[in-house]
Amino acid sequence: MSFTHLDQQGRAKMVDISDKEITLRQAIAGGEVHCKPETVRQVTEQKIKKGDVIAVARVAGIMAAKKTPELIPLCHGISVNSVEIEINADVEKGIITVEALVITEGKTGVEMEALTAVSGTCLCIYDMCKAIDKDMVIDNIRLLKKSGGRSGEYVCAE
Amino acid sequence: MSFTHLDQQGRAKMVDISDKEITLRQAIAGGEVHCKPETVRQVTEQKIKKGDVIAVARVAGIMAAKKTPELIPLCHGISVNSVEIEINADVEKGIITVEALVITEGKTGVEMEALTAVSGTCLCIYDMCKAIDKDMVIDNIRLLKKSGGRSGEYVCAE
Amino acid sequence: MSFTHLDQQGRAKMVDISDKEITLRQAIAGGEVHCKPETVRQVTEQKIKKGDVIAVARVAGIMAAKKTPELIPLCHGISVNSVEIEINADVEKGIITVEALVITEGKTGVEMEALTAVSGTCLCIYDMCKAIDKDMVIDNIRLLKKSGGRSGEYVCAE
Amino acid sequence: MSFTHLDQQGRAKMVDISDKEITLRQAIAGGEVHCKPETVRQVTEQKIKKGDVIAVARVAGIMAAKKTPELIPLCHGISVNSVEIEINADVEKGIITVEALVITEGKTGVEMEALTAVSGTCLCIYDMCKAIDKDMVIDNIRLLKKSGGRSGEYVCAE
Amino acid sequence: MSFTHLDQQGRAKMVDISDKEITLRQAIAGGEVHCKPETVRQVTEQKIKKGDVIAVARVAGIMAAKKTPELIPLCHGISVNSVEIEINADVEKGIITVEALVITEGKTGVEMEALTAVSGTCLCIYDMCKAIDKDMVIDNIRLLKKSGGRSGEYVCAE
Amino acid sequence: MSFTHLDQQGRAKMVDISDKEITLRQAIAGGEVHCKPETVRQVTEQKIKKGDVIAVARVAGIMAAKKTPELIPLCHGISVNSVEIEINADVEKGIITVEALVITEGKTGVEMEALTAVSGTCLCIYDMCKAIDKDMVIDNIRLLKKSGGRSGEYVCAE
Repeated sequence: MSFTHLDQQGRAKMVDISDKEITLRQAIAGGEVHCKPETVRQVTEQKIKKGDVIAVARVAGIMAAKKTPELIPLCHGISVNSVEIEINADVEKGIITVEALVITEGKTGVEMEALTAVSGTCLCIYDMCKAIDKDMVIDNIRLLKKSGGRSGEYVCAE
Repeated sequence: MSFTHLDQQGRAKMVDISDKEITLRQAIAGGEVHCKPETVRQVTEQKIKKGDVIAVARVAGIMAAKKTPELIPLCHGISVNSVEIEINADVEKGIITVEALVITEGKTGVEMEALTAVSGTCLCIYDMCKAIDKDMVIDNIRLLKKSGGRSGEYVCAE
Repeated sequence: MSFTHLDQQGRAKMVDISDKEITLRQAIAGGEVHCKPETVRQVTEQKIKKGDVIAVARVAGIMAAKKTPELIPLCHGISVNSVEIEINADVEKGIITVEALVITEGKTGVEMEALTAVSGTCLCIYDMCKAIDKDMVIDNIRLLKKSGGRSGEYVCAE
Repeated sequence: MSFTHLDQQGRAKMVDISDKEITLRQAIAGGEVHCKPETVRQVTEQKIKKGDVIAVARVAGIMAAKKTPELIPLCHGISVNSVEIEINADVEKGIITVEALVITEGKTGVEMEALTAVSGTCLCIYDMCKAIDKDMVIDNIRLLKKSGGRSGEYVCAE
Repeated sequence: MSFTHLDQQGRAKMVDISDKEITLRQAIAGGEVHCKPETVRQVTEQKIKKGDVIAVARVAGIMAAKKTPELIPLCHGISVNSVEIEINADVEKGIITVEALVITEGKTGVEMEALTAVSGTCLCIYDMCKAIDKDMVIDNIRLLKKSGGRSGEYVCAE
Repeated sequence: MSFTHLDQQGRAKMVDISDKEITLRQAIAGGEVHCKPETVRQVTEQKIKKGDVIAVARVAGIMAAKKTPELIPLCHGISVNSVEIEINADVEKGIITVEALVITEGKTGVEMEALTAVSGTCLCIYDMCKAIDKDMVIDNIRLLKKSGGRSGEYVCAE
């Protein structure tokens, strides 16, 4: 019986991380919900019928970070030390910005956890505002910063 | 004992859909992963070490659609009739486009299911390509089209 | 090949609801977190380090309602029309009361969904306050009211 | 914007069931765990250190049926009316047989739910007995009977 | 780009545990289901139609412990070393008592896992008995004992 | 207050692994789907209407491995380092063979993860082919090899 690690020919696999080091790893991801200025105003003034958008979306983002290995097929199950979501609203521009910081000690990074947290937060904002704004766009979901692990520090060039 | 449906004052609630009609409802959402042309080339030529990106991402998107009520706190649990994911790669522009069609018969629409399917697909593409491309951006996640239900048809103005 | 529906002798089974009618069904459950008056005061003044207890606990309760069939082995998977959580704090008595209203149209009631929503809400309050109060007790989780279905209306005798 | 339902070329999709009829549908699946006679004896006499194998495995099977759409990527989310697991032990032959009956009213059959229930039950039996028997084999997982839906009744030819 | 750990102003966050020590941690929680003496008698004599209440509720409790980070939004994902559920029935008083012991080695305690295990066990007992007893109350869910970690041992004063 | 670890009398419990050593642990499990030669041919030629069976089933298997502690009640939550699925099709014999390799560093083995990965893969193959072949059988699911941990290496005698 043999197992071919080489020569994958397109076969999906969860990459073996047994040889990687356990270190403190951090990742910060960002994203934006573009909507009508009026929508942002109602969010900041807590007038949305479904409830306090910012508070609910923050919880959605934290829980999404924990769901990452269930959502992303080849992601390893990671136990995160911390998840923090920052949401800011710019009424004039009609933009709600989301940033997620995830920290772990482990053998693999937490970019996907941070990006999934941002995605979950943005989707929740969208869901809560869609009754009053049908033209929202979730945009610019990207890694902002990453540290820990073999590949060293990464800072997004903006 | 009384229950105040009125006067929500920012309190999150899952909106009651008891009075809504059961109809056939469809939603199509779209999104994009912006990456290096070289990354798109490796995806289309199936050279990515983690496996066949397109095939895995499509499965991730379908499963994400089914996970919508777990991810989005105030979403109703919907049983979807169909989920379909279309992924196209433009090597020159360095863009992988994703579209998700979700169909249901129920009392509430499937925009969130379609948007979550697109988000899950894009996150999976990102995960599988991040070893060779650290500057990807997930962009332009939006509702393209929607039909069924009280609010009638919606087509995104592009 | 035969299947014995009779003569269960202690064997767990999910009761067949095929013959039951689809009707509008509601259930309201209640519960309490008993804590120090000082804890309730910090909750109402939003001084708890983990965040806004009431807002997070309400989301936890709504999501718990949706998780009922995953938590309670013999519960049917029910698609709920609405979940609403009401949380009130009595600083003097040191009691945070929780009520959950769940509505569905289906073949089986939503008592378990309402009770699970209350339990999830109370556990979340406990989690967020446990750093400052180690002696909290979750108490008096019970069905308050139920309507719809063969067994008619139930109102708890208090 | 167009969506190609035709010409799938190997692309996974959840088949659209919008045109199918809602009918009462049943499926019975079976399976076996082959082990040492001594293992079966300890199971029936409840001597297994991890607990009452039959009782726990039955619960595992019922819960696995409910998890089917999470496990099988292209399965529709189905709300089952009933799940019943029958487990029989034959000490002499060293075989524990498992049968699962699943009933639903819906647009698609419950074969996968019944087969997943059997698989979950067998895996749980394996888990609880593996400390005393390392050579168990899970075998003969198959559809025994199916009724309801367009394709009519199916009875396995044994 | 900055991340404000201070000045929370009610924003939910998963507290960072990176600086905490990995130690052996235990927690024992307790709870009660109050019901009619006749209900307890039927439970102990295994006459409940849905099956063996004690066996199923024990499994429900163990699985609930593992679901804690999915249920409690700000809980860390913890890998537990052991979960044990003890259920005792007092026919005369009409009380079923539940205790859960959870053990882990990690950076954060397992109170919430033990309390969630107790809640899941009690809810399952309620579900299985509700056909014969509509006035049950789940009561007195509390931490009984805790050891390991910075805050030392806690024993509930009863 | 006492907790009886001894004298279990059939009570399910998650065995305490606190005293076990953290080592590198591997498990390989195998299984087979028996079907009509024509079915295997259509799978290998990617003619199945639901999509590329091999690619989807591989993803299903990897995700099933991560779901093991949710499916198997007394399994510990394990963070796996790697999951790899190998699928081979023998058209003449009408057999699709599945092997899963799971690697972890932890206190308990990954047999159940490997067996669950194989079961999930086989069930997914079944689901995707059932429209053209109603007589498939999932067979011969067993542990092939295991290393790491107190009990040393195990190799299945075939």
